[in-house]
Amino acid sequence: MPDSEKVNVCFLPDNINISVQKGENLLEIAMRAGIHINASCGGAGVCGKCKVILETGEVGQDGDDVLSIEDKKKGFVQACTSTVLTDVDIRIPPESIMDHKVLNRRQKESAGFRQAMPAESLPSVKGHLPLFVKICLNVKEPTNIDNVDDVTRLLSTLKKEYGFDNIQIGLRGIRDLARAFREGNWSVTVTFNNGMPDVKWIVRVEAGDTTMDHLGIAIDIGTTTIGGELIDLNTGKKLAEYAEYNAQLSYGEDVITRIIYSQKPGGLKKMQGLAVQTINNIISNLIKQADMDIANVSGMTVAGNTTMTQLFGEIYPQYLREAPYVPTAREFPPVWATDLGIEVRKHVVLYAVPCVASYVGGDIVAGILSSQISKQDPLTLYIDIGTNGEIVIGNKDWLTTASCSAGPAFEGGGIKFGMRATTGAIENVFLNPSTYEPMIVTIGRKKAKGICGSGLINLVSELLSCCIIDQSGKFHRNLNTERVRKGEEGYEYVLDWANDTAIEQDITITEADIDNLIRAKAAMFAGYVTLLESVGLSINDLDRIIIAGGFGNFININHAITLGLLPELPVEKYYFLGNGSLLGARLCCLSAELLADTHELARGMTNIELSENPNFMDKYTASQFLPHTDGSIFSNTISQIECIKEQW
Amino acid sequence: MPDSEKVNVCFLPDNINISVQKGENLLEIAMRAGIHINASCGGAGVCGKCKVILETGEVGQDGDDVLSIEDKKKGFVQACTSTVLTDVDIRIPPESIMDHKVLNRRQKESAGFRQAMPAESLPSVKGHLPLFVKICLNVKEPTNIDNVDDVTRLLSTLKKEYGFDNIQIGLRGIRDLARAFREGNWSVTVTFNNGMPDVKWIVRVEAGDTTMDHLGIAIDIGTTTIGGELIDLNTGKKLAEYAEYNAQLSYGEDVITRIIYSQKPGGLKKMQGLAVQTINNIISNLIKQADMDIANVSGMTVAGNTTMTQLFGEIYPQYLREAPYVPTAREFPPVWATDLGIEVRKHVVLYAVPCVASYVGGDIVAGILSSQISKQDPLTLYIDIGTNGEIVIGNKDWLTTASCSAGPAFEGGGIKFGMRATTGAIENVFLNPSTYEPMIVTIGRKKAKGICGSGLINLVSELLSCCIIDQSGKFHRNLNTERVRKGEEGYEYVLDWANDTAIEQDITITEADIDNLIRAKAAMFAGYVTLLESVGLSINDLDRIIIAGGFGNFININHAITLGLLPELPVEKYYFLGNGSLLGARLCCLSAELLADTHELARGMTNIELSENPNFMDKYTASQFLPHTDGSIFSNTISQIECIKEQW
Repeated sequence: MPDSEKVNVCFLPDNINISVQKGENLLEIAMRAGIHINASCGGAGVCGKCKVILETGEVGQDGDDVLSIEDKKKGFVQACTSTVLTDVDIRIPPESIMDHKVLNRRQKESAGFRQAMPAESLPSVKGHLPLFVKICLNVKEPTNIDNVDDVTRLLSTLKKEYGFDNIQIGLRGIRDLARAFREGNWSVTVTFNNGMPDVKWIVRVEAGDTTMDHLGIAIDIGTTTIGGELIDLNTGKKLAEYAEYNAQLSYGEDVITRIIYSQKPGGLKKMQGLAVQTINNIISNLIKQADMDIANVSGMTVAGNTTMTQLFGEIYPQYLREAPYVPTAREFPPVWATDLGIEVRKHVVLYAVPCVASYVGGDIVAGILSSQISKQDPLTLYIDIGTNGEIVIGNKDWLTTASCSAGPAFEGGGIKFGMRATTGAIENVFLNPSTYEPMIVTIGRKKAKGICGSGLINLVSELLSCCIIDQSGKFHRNLNTERVRKGEEGYEYVLDWANDTAIEQDITITEADIDNLIRAKAAMFAGYVTLLESVGLSINDLDRIIIAGGFGNFININHAITLGLLPELPVEKYYFLGNGSLLGARLCCLSAELLADTHELARGMTNIELSENPNFMDKYTASQFLPHTDGSIFSNTISQIECIKEQW
Repeated sequence: MPDSEKVNVCFLPDNINISVQKGENLLEIAMRAGIHINASCGGAGVCGKCKVILETGEVGQDGDDVLSIEDKKKGFVQACTSTVLTDVDIRIPPESIMDHKVLNRRQKESAGFRQAMPAESLPSVKGHLPLFVKICLNVKEPTNIDNVDDVTRLLSTLKKEYGFDNIQIGLRGIRDLARAFREGNWSVTVTFNNGMPDVKWIVRVEAGDTTMDHLGIAIDIGTTTIGGELIDLNTGKKLAEYAEYNAQLSYGEDVITRIIYSQKPGGLKKMQGLAVQTINNIISNLIKQADMDIANVSGMTVAGNTTMTQLFGEIYPQYLREAPYVPTAREFPPVWATDLGIEVRKHVVLYAVPCVASYVGGDIVAGILSSQISKQDPLTLYIDIGTNGEIVIGNKDWLTTASCSAGPAFEGGGIKFGMRATTGAIENVFLNPSTYEPMIVTIGRKKAKGICGSGLINLVSELLSCCIIDQSGKFHRNLNTERVRKGEEGYEYVLDWANDTAIEQDITITEADIDNLIRAKAAMFAGYVTLLESVGLSINDLDRIIIAGGFGNFININHAITLGLLPELPVEKYYFLGNGSLLGARLCCLSAELLADTHELARGMTNIELSENPNFMDKYTASQFLPHTDGSIFSNTISQIECIKEQW
């Protein structure tokens, strides 16, 4: 694959080298390398401010540029519309070059640290009892003497050939049986599930040998996004992956508004139907992508937070949001997928990953399963950052968990120009500490429409690092830039001028926005510390931090530490799990033992209720500072800020 | 109840006394007493031939009569429109009086023997583990400390208070749980089923105490008729009973035509839907009759023959009718009634009585359960006579069973003027051996439309007893009556002249009709004998014969013995069980132990396949004579026929 070739990019005059994939976008490379290039249009290619000089090597075009013929003659290329095809030397023009005073900062950024979970630490399903099984079987043809019913014939053959004892068959399996026997000339493929302890439950009998057609679907039901995977259950291979916004979004961004909606007459049924509608879209896309037949889906697994799981199961959710926050069920019995409205064949049984508490759901249990924290020695902090942040701390000996309501800031909610992480959202921000000019990249490199959660973290971290705001999140009033100004709602920083945006308004961040973010990160941080203290430990005891979840996936660890959202620990201790919920659902789809493990896990996790915990409230107050009121636990961060302040 | 008062009817001149219920119809009383009264219109009140003289006592009017004022002045009343209100003396006018040569015959008839199963021999459900249970339960309200999920709270309370160990709850139970807890102020009623060994399966949770609202529905799915009962599961009391023709009838009278129909595209679904449609009508009628709420139905049981059970479960039935006659399943897992289309609440689970073989179904197993043959010493022959006649022989030590295809004659099929046992069908027949004039009573006492199965048996028995036909079923040619004549299809007897019928045709019975009946009864009789011989026994070893089934219910034992349909044994050995299938379904609805017994019964019954058994074929040929070629096993019958022959 030529596209995966590595090439070297050297940024001049500072001689910063970075190895990248051939074909990568030059503006994104610069952002990753910590190289500031003025850029206002988010990478849309329309402002022309990100022009750089191509000294050696070759770049390709990724969209139209707006450079003049003179500029091109001088060797300029537009970073946001250029892809790197060979080793290149790129010279940053003087107007983009940053002051040397931020060099040390730039080096830190250039680490660009993103450590995935090592493959060997993910659970293997090799040799496991599968959840969904297909077996091809030859039975003896009946005679006048040996004329027992087909079911008895099937079960006794399974007992004789495989030693299966407690094997049961439901009506759906029985219905196909007689024809399958005769059409398959007494050779049939039996699909059964190992999803109940000690019971093999036959759900389907097909004529002949169809063991090769054996697909599974794993679904992560997220509040914002529902994701799915199509899996070859014989090989364990992922055949397709697809995600869509949860159609419930039109009835509220967070779980609370959806719970409230489902208390209205018909509301619960509506919510259930919307989740199913999204899942059906996803399934139909997965099947199309992989060019498979939906009839060959043998089974399904889902994981979701407790609210999503209850809504999906049409289980009345009102009491999830009322003290003492009791879920209706932690464990959900297997159900026929079609009974929930899922558009698969009638034999498909759906297993849900169990929940721990009202705000620690099957998504977290699935993530813990995937990360194998409960099988390993290192003391691990597992976090899923979002409107409801979930925290798990522990190792193979014990696990404790909590959730904290961080508010919607991480999802772009409650922020003046906040938006979900979709096309046009400002995701990456780099500020020039001398000029305070921003370099911004949007999702999809379109003109900016707003700021998403990870963009907000990056932006506020930059504002702090560049001494544009102070540690309480207030703007310095005496800066030599028109980007900091007094707006209608108090002081604000203009991240993008109206004529460079898609919304024809100045995109700004206000002190109120920063305050929202501070409260959100304070809730998360207070959560870790409270949970750690509840078991007599502190931040420094942690061997590892695993960041899970769709949002966490886009977090820049250094920026998050700078804000005090993540604890100040060596970046090497941080791992990104990705969508642990979907990963866990996939693992369960492959292994009855791992599904059983999730039940053990869910029962074994001790949930600490933070919302009425006075210790948590104290910690929360103490965390409402950037990075924290207790400088000793963020000493490196503080000293860097001090260092910049001195230079300034 | 004044209606259940007994009064005495004395028929003169022969001084025959019979004790009857006050209010009974006089023509029907005469028929039962063996008193011949000319009657042509089936009791419809329009021919006036059944006039008798009321000498003492009082009769009431049951419809209009057609008597002249003169007749009335002379003391005549019309038997078919009179009800007996007091003790009465009734004089039979000379034109109706029979010759004395049939007196001994009349005496035998007058026994009118109908012995029901004694109540104490039916199974009791007292002290049994019920199949469907409601328990009212108080649970502790959750607190911040004790905030386990609702399901765990419910199950642990059940374990603590009742010691229930293996108790499970499905999604349908979970869905109502949270609200029921809060609306019931932590007092709820739990419905669970004991229908799986060692598992209590919660299907419903309601707020407060609803234990008094606890109904069950038992259904017998017959090929012709579907019957249902509504039961108070707390008291065991039957609240309502109702039956309707199986709507599948429009697609064929017998199981074979329905199996063939269900092999067509969409045919099986159609058949399933028709049975369910009938069952839904029955349920709605039962609920209305008893003025109950359908929401209070806690569970359902059904019993039916194997074909009916498979069609009802939408289980493809083709192989039931192809050698080696293998049913798809003998046992059927419990299913949600609504999954089959039954219009009850979602929590209702339906249990089906298991089958033995393709032609020995759950109806027979239910009947054996009801009759308790398998718990008692007497060697019993259990028969259900119909198009498919089922036979069971055995006692508490062993049970063997067979089915024989008797053809449709018993259901009125294949007979020139045959019809189902509905209004207008000639049911009771009495012939005057001197004049050969008939006395007929129709169902509903309307003008005759045809002859039903039991009418056919009675008629042919009378034809034989009156020496109108010989023992091979052929008409004597030299009788002094215009009722025996040569018709288009050979010799025939005119049972009703066209102008007395509802169809304006002479209703006749032909030699071909008699031949059909002989073949049908021969198949049944050969079945008993073959089955007995297969275990080294003979007719005379039988301690008891139990006649079950809707058709059997209307059989006159003496007539059936005369024909050789039933073995010649003292009538005291005969018992009528009635609808054993429905009775068994009701018992199972009340007792999980009896439901479990049906599974043991079905597994323990040895089925003998008669259709390819050479011994059966020999016996069948030998039985094609009235009553049988072997006079020694019908010696009384033969000697009576001889005696009449001599007088004649």
